[in-house]
Formats: sequence, C-alpha cells, structure tokens
Amino acid sequence: MSNPSHLLSLIDALRVLPGVGPKSAQRMAYHLLERDRDGALRLATSMTAAIEHIRHCDQCNTFTEEPLCELCASTRRDPALLCVVETPADQLRMEQTQSYGGLYYVLLGRLSPLDGIGPRELRLNRLIDRAANGVVTEVILATNFTAEGEATAHYVGELLRARGLRVSRIARGLPVGGELEYVDSGTLAQAFIERRPVSGS
Amino acid sequence: MSNPSHLLSLIDALRVLPGVGPKSAQRMAYHLLERDRDGALRLATSMTAAIEHIRHCDQCNTFTEEPLCELCASTRRDPALLCVVETPADQLRMEQTQSYGGLYYVLLGRLSPLDGIGPRELRLNRLIDRAANGVVTEVILATNFTAEGEATAHYVGELLRARGLRVSRIARGLPVGGELEYVDSGTLAQAFIERRPVSGS
Repeated sequence: MSNPSHLLSLIDALRVLPGVGPKSAQRMAYHLLERDRDGALRLATSMTAAIEHIRHCDQCNTFTEEPLCELCASTRRDPALLCVVETPADQLRMEQTQSYGGLYYVLLGRLSPLDGIGPRELRLNRLIDRAANGVVTEVILATNFTAEGEATAHYVGELLRARGLRVSRIARGLPVGGELEYVDSGTLAQAFIERRPVSGS
Repeated sequence: MSNPSHLLSLIDALRVLPGVGPKSAQRMAYHLLERDRDGALRLATSMTAAIEHIRHCDQCNTFTEEPLCELCASTRRDPALLCVVETPADQLRMEQTQSYGGLYYVLLGRLSPLDGIGPRELRLNRLIDRAANGVVTEVILATNFTAEGEATAHYVGELLRARGLRVSRIARGLPVGGELEYVDSGTLAQAFIERRPVSGS
C-alpha cells in the first residue's frame, strides 16, 4: 500500500522539525489527521504568520515584530552592559535566568572557517559599531564553550579590547549542584584553573 | 523579555504534535525561525493541503484522497479476507509487515463506554454490512491487546459469528527473538495458555 501523496508530503515536510526522523514524522502525521485536524490547521496558520511577521531587531538582531525589540526599546535595562550571544535561543536562555539587566547583541552564528563563516559573514563590524557607541562600558561574551564559540569569543574580545572596551567572558566550571565524581575531566580541570579566591569569614 | 506574540502563538501551536511539550516546542520554533524558514513554509503548506485533501475511504475508512482507497480499489487483494484494525496507523503497520493479502476495515476507534463510545458511535453496523457482503469468508480481528481493544474484539467477534462468518484473532505471545527472562508475566502466561501443537519432525 502506498500512502496518499499529500500524506507522504506531510510526513516528509514534518522532518524540518529538529529531532524528528521518519518514524516520528509518520506518527505525527497520523496523529494530526486522526485526532486533531483543527490543531493542525491552527499550527499551519501560526507557522505562516510567524515566518511572515517575525524579523530581526535592527539593533541587536534578536527576533521581534517591530524594528526595535522590546529589550532594546526598554528604558529599564542598563545600556552600559552588552552581552554577546550566538543565537536568539541563547538570548532567551540568558533572559530566563533573570540575572542580567543589560542589553544584548545576537551574532546569529559563530566564526566557522570550515563553513566559510568569517568576520565579514558574521558582520562583526556591526557589533563593533554597536559596542563603541560611547554608552557601553562592558561587553560580556556569552558564546558557547565549543571550539567555534571559544574562537569567536577570543576574536571578538580582541577586536573590542582594541577599542578600549572592558570585555569579560561568562564563567566556566561545575554546574550548580554538580558533583566532582560525575563531571567530565575537561570541565573539572578548567574549574581548577579558574579557581577564585575565597573571602575570609 | 517577552517573546513576540507570533512566536508565542507558534510555540503554543506546535504542542498539537504528539510528544511535544513546552520546551521542545520552543526549541522547534527557534530552530525554524533561525535556520529553516523555507522548510517551515513548506510544512505549513503541506499540512493545510493534507488536511484539505485527505479523507476516509468509503469502504474501509482508511486515509485516501479518492472515494475508494488504493487497497479497496485493487484487484490484487483477496476480497474474502477482512482484517479489522482500530486506526489507519495500525493498518499501515500491518501493511508494512507485507504478510497479509486481504482487505481491511478501520474502526476509527474502539469501544470505550467510559468515553461514551459504544457500538453506535463506532458505527459497527457498517462493519457488519461490509463483512456480510457474501464475499468475505473470514474476518481477522487485529485490534490492540489493551482492555478496550480486547473488549472491542470480543463484541465485534460475537456480532460477526452470529452472521455465520468465520472470525479469528491475531496471536498473542512472545515477540520474535523474545526471551522468557525479559518478557512480562502476563504475556508469558498467555503464551503458555495459547500454546500450539508442534508437528512431528
């Protein structure tokens, strides 16, 4: 038996979703057709509307529906602090910690010479202009601790320090609640190297 | 920071997909917006087209784009055998085994008195009419081995036998390659009760 062709197209199209392989896609398609056709239509509509309306903030590159995102337009954030992240999802993660009150710059990528992504493709000059606006005093690099994220942080840090800006990097170390026995040795070694002085009690 | 409203709608809408909770939905939405906007538009289009074009076969209830599904319209299947399954997905699973050459009847559900689904809601009279067409000689009940699937098989079996039809139930037992040590005791007990005579070598 071959499936109806629209069913096959749907199963195939569902595979654009991250973590969805052929079997999950088939299960999703059958589920929607059998039990939630209205939900499927709402999903299709929401998806089209999101793709149409969601753009990048002119200042920080994150997702927004206005020229400036809500954060960049806010007067309650500290404009002297600028946190550099790789993606809008990373920015969201940072915001969810509710521990940062400054602004952001989203690179929309990372330096990756093997994929042909250099400083020009990342448009790092835009970041430099943004950071050197006379208001920003500290740039916090919050790219990933992967090889590419580290290289990006290093490169961006050099550029910014050449402009006289204070640059910092988020800390590496054991997770909160982490136990030495279960953490990987790279992280443990780094936590040892980056140990901090303890203030006397 | 609050997300743009179309982003929130998309995250919410993605939760119609089976197995997708709030975190996966967020990850999927960001992934699509960051990396595969074309794929997302294709998915929305395929989904709308599938919902619009895919209907149920007039004879067996499975998914089809024509009045009769490909199987019911085929001359290469044995019309004397009728296999009863709960859902189109179950029918697909059976077909994937490539071990059955007859036709199907898809109940689109199961008897479930607690949910108010009785013989009338399942339209079992349609199944009786289909099975008593004078061509079908054996009905194979392939509903699930859950309480509701078993009750459905029992009820449907009685109805069909009252019409003089031969009725069978797919076998229960250990899975192929299954080991006694690891199989649950219910299955093992049933496999013991339903033991089959071995032909002499």
